[in-house]
Amino acid sequence: MGQTIQIEKANSLKEKPDVSNIKFGTVFTDYMFSSHYTPEHGWETPTITPYKNLELSPALQSIHYGQSVFEGLKAYKSGDDILLFRPEENFKRLNRSLERLSMPKINEEDAIKALKELLQLEKDWVPDGPGQSLYIRPFVFADEPFLGVRPSRTYRFLIILSPVAGYSGAALDPTSIYVEDEYVRAVRGGIGNAKAAGNYAASLLAQQKANNLGYEQVLWLDGVHQEYIEEVGSMNIFFVRNGEIVTPELNGSILEGITRKSIIELAEYKGYTVKEERVHIDDFLKGVQDGSISEVFGAGTAAVISPIGRMNIHDTDYIINDNQPGDVAKDLYDHYTEIQYGRLEDPFGWVQKA
Amino acid sequence: MGQTIQIEKANSLKEKPDVSNIKFGTVFTDYMFSSHYTPEHGWETPTITPYKNLELSPALQSIHYGQSVFEGLKAYKSGDDILLFRPEENFKRLNRSLERLSMPKINEEDAIKALKELLQLEKDWVPDGPGQSLYIRPFVFADEPFLGVRPSRTYRFLIILSPVAGYSGAALDPTSIYVEDEYVRAVRGGIGNAKAAGNYAASLLAQQKANNLGYEQVLWLDGVHQEYIEEVGSMNIFFVRNGEIVTPELNGSILEGITRKSIIELAEYKGYTVKEERVHIDDFLKGVQDGSISEVFGAGTAAVISPIGRMNIHDTDYIINDNQPGDVAKDLYDHYTEIQYGRLEDPFGWVQKA
Ligand SMILES: Cc1ncc(COP(=O)(O)O)c(C=O)c1O
Ligand SMILES: Cc1ncc(COP(=O)(O)O)c(C=O)c1O
Repeated sequence: MGQTIQIEKANSLKEKPDVSNIKFGTVFTDYMFSSHYTPEHGWETPTITPYKNLELSPALQSIHYGQSVFEGLKAYKSGDDILLFRPEENFKRLNRSLERLSMPKINEEDAIKALKELLQLEKDWVPDGPGQSLYIRPFVFADEPFLGVRPSRTYRFLIILSPVAGYSGAALDPTSIYVEDEYVRAVRGGIGNAKAAGNYAASLLAQQKANNLGYEQVLWLDGVHQEYIEEVGSMNIFFVRNGEIVTPELNGSILEGITRKSIIELAEYKGYTVKEERVHIDDFLKGVQDGSISEVFGAGTAAVISPIGRMNIHDTDYIINDNQPGDVAKDLYDHYTEIQYGRLEDPFGWVQKA
Repeated sequence: MGQTIQIEKANSLKEKPDVSNIKFGTVFTDYMFSSHYTPEHGWETPTITPYKNLELSPALQSIHYGQSVFEGLKAYKSGDDILLFRPEENFKRLNRSLERLSMPKINEEDAIKALKELLQLEKDWVPDGPGQSLYIRPFVFADEPFLGVRPSRTYRFLIILSPVAGYSGAALDPTSIYVEDEYVRAVRGGIGNAKAAGNYAASLLAQQKANNLGYEQVLWLDGVHQEYIEEVGSMNIFFVRNGEIVTPELNGSILEGITRKSIIELAEYKGYTVKEERVHIDDFLKGVQDGSISEVFGAGTAAVISPIGRMNIHDTDYIINDNQPGDVAKDLYDHYTEIQYGRLEDPFGWVQKA
């Protein structure tokens, strides 16, 4: 990339939907960004075109052999400005994912410039209702047409945009989770800490099992012992134990969430004690039983913070904090989202204009 | 499916290539089969069309969340006949992969009928040189355009065909392998025993590491202990110990190879003792050092049997059987391929006409 971005204008624009009534990730804006990689020229032909279908080979490497990684972040409306939250973190992680899957890295600065140019063109698509935002999906996939287990020679980098209300339900509505001890999401030495397409497909059966048993999300245990807490659904997990905030330490199979990282920094700034440690499910269970664990919540870009009100651990149901959002979750959620929407001072330099 | 297959004829056919000069998986035939799944109608509109690019959404579920599985089998030329080798096993395994990834199953009989109809149309594409065949790639991928971690509602099932000489190099050319003890391919509870796209992307970095160290393939250890032998590259592994044939027992993370299963049956039929057991890498190493292990080979559809002549175990290089194909490997390879090409009697009912 690095070159000027070619822009191909659309003949007509779509009607903007009522964002409060659309499902997450189903409506896309008028334009998308794309760039193509060849071993000879690297990333080139950065282009903004109307959002449209792609013409892809039935032997597409990413469909057959799965070289495909993505990112997820959001743009927020603040008066006439569009704000981004730590976008450099997303493109850094995209590069870590790309490396893990033997894919060529992108230039992080060029990617942010491209994103900002796209957002300028699409600024009317950033919704301004409460909790609303424009979800940004950068992704890279292998597009060489061949069958064989080796890295693709060619790739595409795209950014598409989708206006969203919130990931699901109202903000801070408590969710229910099922502790999964049969299926495994990821294991150290694997690709759990990459945002790779294959990880998500691998998680669906456990998700369905949890749903069938009456729970909304899966709590994943580690792949080696199936005893240590890792993540909840597609979020990192936090809990409050004796007033301190605890989250599982990064171990190679947990995805390094940007919300996780930012929540830790914000909580420490606000005077909480935060501990990153290996958490055995039975120690966790004891804390739930004896009341030392007073709150549990997930953290991720989509919902920011998602309180957990009900948990199935070893086939027994436990209610956390009367199935209500806890004080710590509420405190962090409010502060965090106020920073994201530019309504509270940002002492961390997290927020930038698009 | 079940319905009559619509056939759309091509206006012109491609020139057939010299198969001995093409790379595996890069040349495709004139036609492909496809069918589409919706929750309302199941699998429908089975169609044979000219092989051509697909129009797919940039929000394609399989690119973002990886619901994509495949199979690989071959058609062999025998006089005027085209032979298939245990195709029902491939479609059975496809259904197991589909289930594991929360995807809708196909009808196995309809799929075999569709494959045979496609092969009849493409019979001139089945090459007849020594070791040559027509590689068959059935695959299913999610094609709903949306962003979110849930199973897709719609899917495509395709079959594409590619004439091949052999997977790589000459038949029975010994290969070299590196025992990987950092990266992990799969773990029990995961999707290692599904032929899912994501597994292959996850394996590439270790493959590159092995290549950089001067080895052709990776020997994968189990994901839990990183101590038990699982597979080699994209093949199952066998070895000969004190004249007996040994292969790691299936454990949920090893792919259930059809070649593996058939080699076991053929070897027993020929009077060999075959053992399926959990194999610790250090026991294996001892056998290599004291000479009780006399042959090591991989087994898979692409190469059938691939002798292993050199191995790096715990950073030391070992030469197996003077880096020559062993007698057991040769014996099984010859018998197996003669059955596949219809030149030797098939006492198992493995071979059928297309
Ligand atoms: C598996 C998984 N864990 C955690 C997260 C949270 O990461 P982030 O806070 O960067 O959105 C995500 C992404 O949303 C995820 O997919
Ligand atoms: C990971 C893996 N293991 C083993 C095999 C061998 O399976 P089969 O004998 O059915 O080709 C394959 C496929 O070729 C594979 O992809």
